[in-house]
Amino acid sequence: MRIHLPKKHLADVLSQVERVVPTRSSTPGLHLVHLYNRDNQQLVFQGSNMDIDIEAILNADIEASDVDHFSVPAQVFGQIVRALPGELVELSLDDNELNISSGSFATSLQLADASTSPSLDFPDDYQGTISSSILASAFSHVRYATAVAEYQAIFRGVKLELSDNHTRAIATDGFRLAYYHIETSSGMDANVVIPAKAVDEMTRLLAEGDVQLHVADNQLSLATGAYKLNVKLMEGTFPDYERVIPADFIVSMLIDSKQLTETVKRVALMADQNANNRVDLFLKDGTLQITAEGGYGHSQEALEVSQEGSESQIALAYNAAYLIDALATVSGDMRVSFSGTTSPSLLTSLQDPSYLAMVVPLRTS
Amino acid sequence: MRIHLPKKHLADVLSQVERVVPTRSSTPGLHLVHLYNRDNQQLVFQGSNMDIDIEAILNADIEASDVDHFSVPAQVFGQIVRALPGELVELSLDDNELNISSGSFATSLQLADASTSPSLDFPDDYQGTISSSILASAFSHVRYATAVAEYQAIFRGVKLELSDNHTRAIATDGFRLAYYHIETSSGMDANVVIPAKAVDEMTRLLAEGDVQLHVADNQLSLATGAYKLNVKLMEGTFPDYERVIPADFIVSMLIDSKQLTETVKRVALMADQNANNRVDLFLKDGTLQITAEGGYGHSQEALEVSQEGSESQIALAYNAAYLIDALATVSGDMRVSFSGTTSPSLLTSLQDPSYLAMVVPLRTS
Repeated sequence: MRIHLPKKHLADVLSQVERVVPTRSSTPGLHLVHLYNRDNQQLVFQGSNMDIDIEAILNADIEASDVDHFSVPAQVFGQIVRALPGELVELSLDDNELNISSGSFATSLQLADASTSPSLDFPDDYQGTISSSILASAFSHVRYATAVAEYQAIFRGVKLELSDNHTRAIATDGFRLAYYHIETSSGMDANVVIPAKAVDEMTRLLAEGDVQLHVADNQLSLATGAYKLNVKLMEGTFPDYERVIPADFIVSMLIDSKQLTETVKRVALMADQNANNRVDLFLKDGTLQITAEGGYGHSQEALEVSQEGSESQIALAYNAAYLIDALATVSGDMRVSFSGTTSPSLLTSLQDPSYLAMVVPLRTS
Repeated sequence: MRIHLPKKHLADVLSQVERVVPTRSSTPGLHLVHLYNRDNQQLVFQGSNMDIDIEAILNADIEASDVDHFSVPAQVFGQIVRALPGELVELSLDDNELNISSGSFATSLQLADASTSPSLDFPDDYQGTISSSILASAFSHVRYATAVAEYQAIFRGVKLELSDNHTRAIATDGFRLAYYHIETSSGMDANVVIPAKAVDEMTRLLAEGDVQLHVADNQLSLATGAYKLNVKLMEGTFPDYERVIPADFIVSMLIDSKQLTETVKRVALMADQNANNRVDLFLKDGTLQITAEGGYGHSQEALEVSQEGSESQIALAYNAAYLIDALATVSGDMRVSFSGTTSPSLLTSLQDPSYLAMVVPLRTS
């Protein structure tokens, strides 16, 4: 087969495929991208890393020949295409070579044996549909709260709840929790836990328009624009998060997200990184005093806030990084609500009521 | 003492000092920056990593007290200053603490014991003077050709020749050489070999105006703007580079630097990285053909060039990275002159005749 394509389209697709396909792998053929001629009108790209499969489709005018599919190393193919001198690329197949030419440049890339590669299967029909931007927003607000390394693997995933009347994403590592809830339905009913790495790849592909979703056989599939993904789901029981989110608060304050973030970052420079990066908060009479101390010395800053609640003051401590993370995905005024000195605190955004973050204070005694 | 300073000035100076002073060190006190009150008018900063000493001076209105100097960890001090909320900083000394305050933020940094720190000595008088931009240009044109790891340590340095009528910088790793020669004198006479890392720090500090130079006791000292550096020189004999630069050529070509660079980069994607990243050049009848082949396949590109010389053609091979490096610091038309298929080739810039690069071809048989 022979194909003429704009370099940019080919480079964009290969960049996405390269994000999934590993550069090297002990599994034979896993570093390959497989290309197919579909009806002389579409060039189909497929690749996998065993946990995530990707398919991309480029519309193209394809001159058919006996050979209608081939496999080449994804990274090398991508590097060549990005370096091409012209705006247009010609791909043509010899017996055992892919010829890539553009302007006065030409290269011949040896075809790889794909007989040992896993065969990939993407659904034709999907169960539900939701706006790409809503799903991307849900993922990007909660992703930070997944555990990096935890004895329970399930903490390294994001729970996605799809129901008749809402869509919800939750992540927690046991010390903090992030939650994003939208009253928009995908028209399907499923509760799945997606590995954090797969959440990142899904988020990256979610651009304009809608995304179609499908859950079957411990796999979540999505289709958006020119791309399809299959994602292997996590097994196990996600913690009963609703039980731990407090509903009663003794004190709360309103404060600008950016101001609180910058102050915590500044004060925490003196915090002891070997002691949970501890910062102390003392709220009284509309003044929030933030302090830290460690081996290098101590620091403090006071902020004026709008204070409410039955108690006149509260003193408690947090891991500074948890506060900073919880504030990173929102802007504008935040309400920080304290349920007690040892029970979880809630951070909610006045601009985006879909978002809620919970942080457990440090034990200070 | 008590000092009021613009945050920006203090942050700039600390960033430069932090580049030299190590974050951690097994040598006691090496991670510290030492500050002195000089005549109640200047705040003097000093630090070292044993190979490079740095001094910086900030003009400031200093309220004197009994204690007129102190030492604190450079990195922590720098981090705090960069995070300060206000435009102005107040520094004040307690018995054993440096108080840093800005806006509503205040921190107290414990003073460190500097009694074990090496004492630093910067010259008051300098032997020579040259334009900072000329010296920076000389260094930045040749730095790339230093050896990364080589059995002869001297290859890891840049030779600086200061004479009555010229200033010259040279670097070589035995396979290629870079040379920068200016008919401008610093008014002093010295030949020194400077470690590549020290060259980088010197280049970074060379901004506007002139730089003063001094060589004594196997140490190069420089003073430019608010900064002084002492740099430990390398010992040993730098190779006799003038002997190896060829003067007679059988063929040469004129070609745009950027065009040649991009073509070599593109073609070299197919080169075998385990075989010196080899690219082949074939020049004939005003056409330069560049080819490469390796495990993934092969590639080629042809460029029109302006050709001269007694021979009608030449075929030879290079390490692609050496060609790319030699072209990276120049733009516009280059003359590439070939002395033979196994003897060194020269690259010179028509726009900047001060620069010359030599590359030894690969043995192709």
